Amino acid sequence: MKKKLSLVKIGGNVMESKNELAKFLQLFSELQGPKILVHGGGKLATELGVKLGVEAQMVGGRRITDAQNLEIITMVYGGLANKNIVAQLQASHCNAIGLSGADANTIKAYKRPVREIDFGFVGDVESVNTKNIERLLQGGFTPVFCAITHDGNGQLFNTNADTIASEIAIGMSEMYETTLYYCFEKKGVLLNITDKDSVIKNIDSNSYQDLLHKKIIADGMLPKLENCFYALQKNVNKVCIGDISMLRPASTVYTTITL
Amino acid sequence: MKKKLSLVKIGGNVMESKNELAKFLQLFSELQGPKILVHGGGKLATELGVKLGVEAQMVGGRRITDAQNLEIITMVYGGLANKNIVAQLQASHCNAIGLSGADANTIKAYKRPVREIDFGFVGDVESVNTKNIERLLQGGFTPVFCAITHDGNGQLFNTNADTIASEIAIGMSEMYETTLYYCFEKKGVLLNITDKDSVIKNIDSNSYQDLLHKKIIADGMLPKLENCFYALQKNVNKVCIGDISMLRPASTVYTTITL
Repeated sequence: MKKKLSLVKIGGNVMESKNELAKFLQLFSELQGPKILVHGGGKLATELGVKLGVEAQMVGGRRITDAQNLEIITMVYGGLANKNIVAQLQASHCNAIGLSGADANTIKAYKRPVREIDFGFVGDVESVNTKNIERLLQGGFTPVFCAITHDGNGQLFNTNADTIASEIAIGMSEMYETTLYYCFEKKGVLLNITDKDSVIKNIDSNSYQDLLHKKIIADGMLPKLENCFYALQKNVNKVCIGDISMLRPASTVYTTITL
Repeated sequence: MKKKLSLVKIGGNVMESKNELAKFLQLFSELQGPKILVHGGGKLATELGVKLGVEAQMVGGRRITDAQNLEIITMVYGGLANKNIVAQLQASHCNAIGLSGADANTIKAYKRPVREIDFGFVGDVESVNTKNIERLLQGGFTPVFCAITHDGNGQLFNTNADTIASEIAIGMSEMYETTLYYCFEKKGVLLNITDKDSVIKNIDSNSYQDLLHKKIIADGMLPKLENCFYALQKNVNKVCIGDISMLRPASTVYTTITL
């Protein structure tokens, strides 16, 4: 039987409140068994950009990563956010080790091909080095990934944190029975967007089609759930979506997604 | 017989020139056997401080690290400098993994006690976790340390990179025959400060006393050499001081310090 692995992704909203982040990290540190954390950085990078007078370039609602923005992302995600998360986890006796995709050559990516838009230094994941991640887990470490990858030739890339989480989960599923947790500000996927307690407890491929048809899943939730089903199709055991309290052992209020 | 370990510290001057840094990293990646890199960040942090309007507070010629300066240091040393060094080493097929002292709980420090001056978030090294560093080396990784430590309770500290290098070298000397290389802008310890080629090839405890007496070693070189002899007394095998070409296997122009 495969050993269990928990892979947790926290979004920008959790990162922005020191209190919420501290609560989350405490819960994460209490998770039993091998585990991996993936974090974004979101508004922290935008805030530094504003202070430095570097504009966030947006095209069609999507962010372009030029050289200056890549520097900011490397400072904020790889430095400020990652090192503070690691230090806080260490304080909770979780033997965290902070990583970008360049560290231990864990995640290789290639520059997103230019079609209508040149996204600049945005990388799409090419491969996850599961052997090196496994070595770290075997060493008793808890990898903490920021949303940065590299091309293997010295170039760093800004990469979507949700994608990094699902790609690592997929890679590690060769060796582990993997559960992927997407932590965000809501309690789960909501049946009624105006009712924060209308959490759908279970979604599978069939009910997903139904929810799509009824337009209950739309907008930002759509790519998130597509990502979840993609991970499940690639052998991730289970995907859960909810707020940070989902990590409590007794928690039942969150959305579980299965094939 | 103990295995050999190379521990290399590069200073701010090497970091400031992209060309010099690239040359150095190529030479470092070619070093045989297990190795560790420690880097400063120096002026890069000062530059970001200027851009952000955060003044570097100096008291008696020494830098004070307040909360804002600690954030800058965490961004620049732990993020920008460390991740770019790691990505460049990976491009040279060196399996680098970037670390602060918080990562894998490698270096614990305590806040420097307040006597005449409160240095703020400056940490003095309390202990080096040689077991975790050894696990990383055994895993085939090359640790790349920035000059940041932690107190184990979630607080990061700014710590002198020369000290981090000597403390890691001392710790690892239990297991390894360790050579500590201090790379800086000069070819070695100079007999005549105005002649850049007047490198003293060997210094031992006896000749050191003589050089002190003749005031050949003074100013900035004094604490550097005190640090070297401290490391040697604590079982580091050899300490070398020179510029980056010291890492070439055929190089003979640098200063070797022994007891």
